[in-house]
Amino acid sequence: MDENDIRIKKLGGGSLLIAWQLRDKNVLIVGGGEVASQRIESILTADAHITVLSPQKGLHPRTQRFIELRKDRITYYDRPYSGPEELDSMDMVLTALDDNELSRSIVELSRERRIPVNAADIPDLCDFYFGAQIRDGPLQIMISTNGNGPRMASIIKTRLQKGLSGLEGEAIIKVGQLRNKLKEREPGVGGQIGRDRMKWMSGLCNQWEMEDFTLLDEAMMEKVLDEGWEQDGRVPKVEEIGIRTSRKSTSGSFGQPSNYNVFKRVENASSIAIAPTTFAFVAGAAVASLVLIRFLKR
Amino acid sequence: MDENDIRIKKLGGGSLLIAWQLRDKNVLIVGGGEVASQRIESILTADAHITVLSPQKGLHPRTQRFIELRKDRITYYDRPYSGPEELDSMDMVLTALDDNELSRSIVELSRERRIPVNAADIPDLCDFYFGAQIRDGPLQIMISTNGNGPRMASIIKTRLQKGLSGLEGEAIIKVGQLRNKLKEREPGVGGQIGRDRMKWMSGLCNQWEMEDFTLLDEAMMEKVLDEGWEQDGRVPKVEEIGIRTSRKSTSGSFGQPSNYNVFKRVENASSIAIAPTTFAFVAGAAVASLVLIRFLKR
Repeated sequence: MDENDIRIKKLGGGSLLIAWQLRDKNVLIVGGGEVASQRIESILTADAHITVLSPQKGLHPRTQRFIELRKDRITYYDRPYSGPEELDSMDMVLTALDDNELSRSIVELSRERRIPVNAADIPDLCDFYFGAQIRDGPLQIMISTNGNGPRMASIIKTRLQKGLSGLEGEAIIKVGQLRNKLKEREPGVGGQIGRDRMKWMSGLCNQWEMEDFTLLDEAMMEKVLDEGWEQDGRVPKVEEIGIRTSRKSTSGSFGQPSNYNVFKRVENASSIAIAPTTFAFVAGAAVASLVLIRFLKR
Repeated sequence: MDENDIRIKKLGGGSLLIAWQLRDKNVLIVGGGEVASQRIESILTADAHITVLSPQKGLHPRTQRFIELRKDRITYYDRPYSGPEELDSMDMVLTALDDNELSRSIVELSRERRIPVNAADIPDLCDFYFGAQIRDGPLQIMISTNGNGPRMASIIKTRLQKGLSGLEGEAIIKVGQLRNKLKEREPGVGGQIGRDRMKWMSGLCNQWEMEDFTLLDEAMMEKVLDEGWEQDGRVPKVEEIGIRTSRKSTSGSFGQPSNYNVFKRVENASSIAIAPTTFAFVAGAAVASLVLIRFLKR
């Protein structure tokens, strides 16, 4: 039994992290406090229609603001939850209530109807948990500690953000545009053509720095296809396309998913290192001079 | 309308990233190829019971290995999908088939039964998408590009991994143990005591380096509670607890969720910088010696 087998034997103890699709689906949020406002933000991100049930006096200012600004997506009722008929035609139910008993009853009714449900602060009742999130356009990152403290998730989020250049979302958009242009030239779903397109796009993503893609304009994208896909599916170098990169080193890291931030850090470290080098040269000169002068004086 | 309002107006275009709970639930996987093997790994992580339907000849070696090693969780049938009765008592359905028509029909039947369903390679049929994942004990991170290419998600995953120290999972476990010890001393669910506990734990997580927690043993945890929680809920310094940290600098970064890796990188950069410094010293000595000798020779 090798290392991988041991890993397989041990798999478990986690959740299934997924990107749930809610475009134009109906989501019920019972409650209007701070947690409800966080839920509204997450659900708006996913383009759903939201129904909020909460007496006006229970509304957090942020919930209030969401309701005012997003009338296109949020239907607000100034009243408490009234009964099972509230669940009709809902695709997801979220409770954010202080009343645990009411939460439990809403969860049970949702389960009976097989509607995915989350009850804030009652993890054992939840079909799913929320986590800390990073969003950059089409890029979404979720950090879950599997119920071991939202504070830790938030600290790890900060740590992860430091490792990102902030250009990833833009790069993903440009890669998507390039893929669409490729599909226009070579239409067809699945099969060999689908595999060929995917293979070529993967090669490009592997060999270019992610940030190179952000510099592509329409004309450059056509050039990538002309000089790459049309030439037996080779991967053109960024220099051929006329992209001016800010990359300092093309050796070694080229073809690796290396990190612009890392370069930046090392560059900073090198520039700090110039001072000691100059100092060492001067020190070496001074010491040698002193020794020689002393020696020759004898 | 301020900046935040503009942000609220623009929210949309994404998915709802969630941690789905599958402990002891039933998941059907139709297909046995490479994609199916990836699905099995994700589902095993979430402690579900898996039924795999696929003729033996369609099994990828990794799928085969999972079936052999995890008989405790996987029930395998050496035959193709036979009809709607396969969906009975299932809590989730995943198809990983080349046959798009069959996939579509399984998706439709699952929808009718309100069973969450994912069909590989047919995004418009999916209730949810998968993404690239990082796992470190209780810590799970998911990277979704919202269908804009799995290759980009995988590159970003590598980038994020560089920003992690690899000790985050262990730190989360220790924080969880400390929280449990606190709950033993101060039992009770919700209300003021719940808020007080959460506030104290958050203060601790904010003021300590995450890696400090990994060094806590049982006795130290009791000391944290004695010197912290029991003393009007103050946050004790790591030095008081007797933790020997590897932290080089306690100024500035203390209290910030700073990154051990950053320290490590700078340290590496400095050690590389020793060579040029030594070289500069020797060079300085040599140049000065030559100049002096020439000068004195005259």
